[in-house]
Amino acid sequence: MFSVTVRDHMMIAHSFRGEVFGPAQRLHGATYVVDATFKRATLDEDNIVVDIGRAARELRAVLSELSYRNLDDLAEFTGVNTSTEALAEVVADRLAERVRAGALGDGGRELSGLAVTLHESHIAWATYERPL
Amino acid sequence: MFSVTVRDHMMIAHSFRGEVFGPAQRLHGATYVVDATFKRATLDEDNIVVDIGRAARELRAVLSELSYRNLDDLAEFTGVNTSTEALAEVVADRLAERVRAGALGDGGRELSGLAVTLHESHIAWATYERPL
Amino acid sequence: MFSVTVRDHMMIAHSFRGEVFGPAQRLHGATYVVDATFKRATLDEDNIVVDIGRAARELRAVLSELSYRNLDDLAEFTGVNTSTEALAEVVADRLAERVRAGALGDGGRELSGLAVTLHESHIAWATYERPL
Amino acid sequence: MFSVTVRDHMMIAHSFRGEVFGPAQRLHGATYVVDATFKRATLDEDNIVVDIGRAARELRAVLSELSYRNLDDLAEFTGVNTSTEALAEVVADRLAERVRAGALGDGGRELSGLAVTLHESHIAWATYERPL
Amino acid sequence: MFSVTVRDHMMIAHSFRGEVFGPAQRLHGATYVVDATFKRATLDEDNIVVDIGRAARELRAVLSELSYRNLDDLAEFTGVNTSTEALAEVVADRLAERVRAGALGDGGRELSGLAVTLHESHIAWATYERPL
Amino acid sequence: MFSVTVRDHMMIAHSFRGEVFGPAQRLHGATYVVDATFKRATLDEDNIVVDIGRAARELRAVLSELSYRNLDDLAEFTGVNTSTEALAEVVADRLAERVRAGALGDGGRELSGLAVTLHESHIAWATYERPL
Repeated sequence: MFSVTVRDHMMIAHSFRGEVFGPAQRLHGATYVVDATFKRATLDEDNIVVDIGRAARELRAVLSELSYRNLDDLAEFTGVNTSTEALAEVVADRLAERVRAGALGDGGRELSGLAVTLHESHIAWATYERPL
Repeated sequence: MFSVTVRDHMMIAHSFRGEVFGPAQRLHGATYVVDATFKRATLDEDNIVVDIGRAARELRAVLSELSYRNLDDLAEFTGVNTSTEALAEVVADRLAERVRAGALGDGGRELSGLAVTLHESHIAWATYERPL
Repeated sequence: MFSVTVRDHMMIAHSFRGEVFGPAQRLHGATYVVDATFKRATLDEDNIVVDIGRAARELRAVLSELSYRNLDDLAEFTGVNTSTEALAEVVADRLAERVRAGALGDGGRELSGLAVTLHESHIAWATYERPL
Repeated sequence: MFSVTVRDHMMIAHSFRGEVFGPAQRLHGATYVVDATFKRATLDEDNIVVDIGRAARELRAVLSELSYRNLDDLAEFTGVNTSTEALAEVVADRLAERVRAGALGDGGRELSGLAVTLHESHIAWATYERPL
Repeated sequence: MFSVTVRDHMMIAHSFRGEVFGPAQRLHGATYVVDATFKRATLDEDNIVVDIGRAARELRAVLSELSYRNLDDLAEFTGVNTSTEALAEVVADRLAERVRAGALGDGGRELSGLAVTLHESHIAWATYERPL
Repeated sequence: MFSVTVRDHMMIAHSFRGEVFGPAQRLHGATYVVDATFKRATLDEDNIVVDIGRAARELRAVLSELSYRNLDDLAEFTGVNTSTEALAEVVADRLAERVRAGALGDGGRELSGLAVTLHESHIAWATYERPL
C-alpha cells in the first residue's frame, strides 16, 4: 500500500456547546495544521500515487472555504460542535467529493482511501479515515 | 474511523540485560515523549471521540506513576527489560484499565482501540496498538 | 550566557483592522504555541537558570488569562491589533511583571532577559525580546 | 501489534519525465528524511521488536547506496520516475531483503511487516507498507 | 526587538569541489526548508513587523529562482561551492534587495535586520544574519 | 554572521539535590537532543563555516563520553547538579577544547563562537553560548 501526504493549515474561530468542553464553550479559535493522506494500492503510469502539487492545491481549496472564518456563523455548522475530529471528517469528505469529481485527474479515481489529521496544538490532534 | 491523540512525556532511569543492548546495559535514562491515540468508529453526542482535556489527564496520571523513577527499582519490572516498545504496552494497558473503569466517562467505553507511541529520541520511537 | 525555554499554548479568537490583513480582517482564531526563554549570565546556587517547573507554571498562568477567549472582547485590547508579534510582547511583559514580583523566587530577579516566541502555524512565528 | 521506527536521511539528485511534474522535470534534488518501521505481533526474548542500533545500521546501509548520487545515472532506475513514493518502495524492499538474509538476527525473521516513509519537505511525504 | 519568521522550501541539485566534502563532491541534491526572519525595533502603525502574507510571497519569489534547478548549471554559481551556509547568504541578500526595492511596502524599509536559516536535513542547518 | 548547527542525542541517568527539584531529586533520566552551533564571521576557502560531517563527528565524540551513563557516578560531576543548562555548558566547553586542539582543522580555529542547546523534552530546553 502506498500513500502520499500533503500539509497545509487554516485559522478559525468557534465555540462549543456542552459542559464537557469547559472554557472552550466560550468563543475562541484554533490554527489547524492539516495533513491529508491519499492512499492507493499501486502506483500510476507516472509512478506516483497522486501529483503532490495537485493534491496540495485541492487541500488548499478545501481549507480556504473555512479559513479566516467564525465557524459559528456558517449555516452548514448550525447546531454542530466543530470539534477537531468533526472538522477532520468535514475536510476529508470535501476532498473526497473533489477526487470523485476528477480534481486529481482520472488517476485520482483509483485512490482507495483518504485520511485527514488536524493538529490543534503541539500536544493534541485528531484523524478521520475513510475509503474512497 | 476517528481518532484523537494527546501528547505528554516522562523521564526515567533504567538498564537493560542482554548483549544485544551494548552500552545500554549500563544504568542510563530516557525522556519518553508519549502519544496516546484513542479510536472510535463514530463520534459521541458531543461530536467528539473523547474529551481531550480528560484524555490528557488520564495519560498524565499513568505517566506520573513512572516518571522521575529508576524503573530497575520498581517491583513490577523485576526481571523485565523496560524497552521502549515494552513500556508502550505498559502505558497502553494502564490507560485501557482506566478507560474500562470509566475514567473517560460512559462514552469512553465505546472506544474501539488504543495506540501508544513512545519517542525515545528524534530518531527512534516505538508503538503498541491494542483493541479496547 | 545561559537560557532555559519552556513551551505551552493558547487558543484564541480575534480579528484585525487594516487592509494589509486581507481575509484576516474577519473574525477568526489561532492556536499559539508559545516558547518563553529566560536568560541569565551565570547559574544560581542550584546550578540552574530557573526552575523549569516554576517557569512553566508562570507561563501557564499568563496564557490562561488569554486562552479560550475572543481577544476583541477584552478591554485591554480595544483598538489594538492583536497580531502575533504584539501578543508576544504582551506575554513577555506579563511574565516580566511576575518575575519582578518574585514569582520565580529571589533568583528570578537575577534574570537578564526574556524572549517570547508565538508560533501561529507550522510556517509562521514571531518573537519579542526584552531585558529584565 | 508492536512497531519500532528509526529515522535517517539521504540527499539525492534526479529528474522526472511526464508533464504532470512541471518544473520537477528539470534536474533537481531532494533531502529525504526516512523513517523505517518494523512490525511484530509479540516481543522477542529480549522484550524488543528489533534492536534499534541494528535497525539503524541496516537503514543506513540501504540509504548509503543511494545518497550523494544522481539517481538518473543509476542503471537500476533507467526509465523509472524516482518519485518519493517509488523510492519508499525501493528502500522498503531492500530492507526486506536484508531482514530475510538475517541482518537483524534470527528474531528479524519474525517481523510481520515494514513501512517506509520518505519526507521530501516539511509539507509533503510518502509511505510504502508491505508484509515481510 | 521584534521579529517575524516565515517558512518555505526549495529542492535543488548541486555538487561540491574540495576533498573536505567527501561523497558530496558527486552530483546530488537537497531539500532546503528555509526560514526567513525579519527584525524591527518597534511595530508599525498596523502593530506588525511585516505582513506575514507579503513576507511569504517575497520568500517564495526568491526561492522559485533556485528551486527545481541544478545549481551547477547557473552562471551565478560558477566556481562557487553552494554550501548550505553560502545559499543562506544568497537567499538573505536577495530578500534584502527586494525589501530595499519596496516589496514589503514603506514599512519594510524600517526593518533593521534579516536572518535566513536553511535546514538541509533533520540533523543539520545553517544560518546567515545581516543588517538591513 | 554565519552559523552551522548539527544535531545528535545522548541518554543519561542522574538525580538532583535541592528542594526546588521536587520529584527530580530521585534517580531518573533524560534523553537530551543536542544542537551544537558553530559561528564564524566569514566563510572559509571551501565556502563553509565548518565541515558538517566533521562537526557531527566531534559532537558525537563529546556525547559518547556521557551517554548511557549514570552521571551521579562520574567523578567530574561529584557534588554538581547536572541540570540541562549545566550540561549544555559541559558539552560546549568540551567541544571548544576540541576545536582549539584542531579537531575541526585549521579553519576551526577561526570560529568565533559556539552555542549548545539541550532539549530535555518537547516542552523544555536550555542553551549555553560562549565565544571561542
